[in-house]
Amino acid sequence: MNFPSKLIEDAVSEFEKLPGIGRKTALRLVLHLLRQSNESVTLFSDRIQKMRSEIRFCKTCHNISDGEYCNICSSRVRNRTVVCVVENFRDVIAIENTAQYNGLYHVLGGVISPLEGIGPDALNIESLIQRTHAGEINEVLMALSPTMEGDTTIFYISRKLQNNTGIKITTLARGVAFGGELEYTDDLTLARSIATRLPYENYLVNRE
Amino acid sequence: MNFPSKLIEDAVSEFEKLPGIGRKTALRLVLHLLRQSNESVTLFSDRIQKMRSEIRFCKTCHNISDGEYCNICSSRVRNRTVVCVVENFRDVIAIENTAQYNGLYHVLGGVISPLEGIGPDALNIESLIQRTHAGEINEVLMALSPTMEGDTTIFYISRKLQNNTGIKITTLARGVAFGGELEYTDDLTLARSIATRLPYENYLVNRE
Repeated sequence: MNFPSKLIEDAVSEFEKLPGIGRKTALRLVLHLLRQSNESVTLFSDRIQKMRSEIRFCKTCHNISDGEYCNICSSRVRNRTVVCVVENFRDVIAIENTAQYNGLYHVLGGVISPLEGIGPDALNIESLIQRTHAGEINEVLMALSPTMEGDTTIFYISRKLQNNTGIKITTLARGVAFGGELEYTDDLTLARSIATRLPYENYLVNRE
Repeated sequence: MNFPSKLIEDAVSEFEKLPGIGRKTALRLVLHLLRQSNESVTLFSDRIQKMRSEIRFCKTCHNISDGEYCNICSSRVRNRTVVCVVENFRDVIAIENTAQYNGLYHVLGGVISPLEGIGPDALNIESLIQRTHAGEINEVLMALSPTMEGDTTIFYISRKLQNNTGIKITTLARGVAFGGELEYTDDLTLARSIATRLPYENYLVNRE
């Protein structure tokens, strides 16, 4: 597809670099912006640039942050004795949206993956261990994806923490998803959810 | 969905304004940009802002252009006796991509639509009439969508041009699309394509 203008061509090729956006969609977005006022397009581009250049990472939990420490770490109403370990800040957003968790976070920045050459040193694991030394934390909730890499990372961190007897390590409950059809649940999940079956009273609690 | 950062929030809300992009996709795009280098995000935002602020419209055909006149109008190899009338520059791009047309264009900027309050004065029709007065043009090809509004616009322009006897007015051929299934073709198109049926020789020419 050729464009009558180098300016359009450049803008389309920039949008095209985004995930899930092909050349036709990119052109549609560019033509949409072309119909907007100069001011609103300037706002669009400024906000994106500012987002990238001014974003910072919380010194404590490595979550994205506007300042030195993120809103969650600097909050006074949060339970400071529980730390939820997640892969990235998208997971923080997902957990925050459940409104079920009131503790702190620790963003690893990935999971251990020997295949991709990601070792423990490339992740924010050492700073997690340091945090637990302060003595305030008594539970580390592992909220990593139930993949080989996630499980390896949980195992690695739990080994690192095992000397600290004051800390309880927990993981997210695994099982059949609410609203999920039993027949479409994978074998492993189904098998594990039978092996780790719950008393009915607990089930009722979970439904609330 | 709440975000831990005002910067992210702002960037997501900007992406969300684009057509076909919801909050989740917007977040995905923002997080993608966050993983890119500062330089490449600056390039992204600069190119988009530059596109909007520096884009110009060709003084002759109203197509988008980097300069005073577009590449097509200033080309020396184009057939200057045919003008193709289109609704917007997306249509120019579509026709250019067929590589079947070597004439000039005239971008109306829309079609006559009384329901939406778009009258002939809101479109680049007067400048089209002016162009035909110069005497160089001997064919006006109406390449508008086969809608009520498109047909109204073609009718209006053809009335305006009828005093100029040196100009032939043509429209795009209507009929069953190549590769289209006959049974799924709408009644009107099928009826019209029977009424305006072609000698087999012409069909062979079209297939080439």
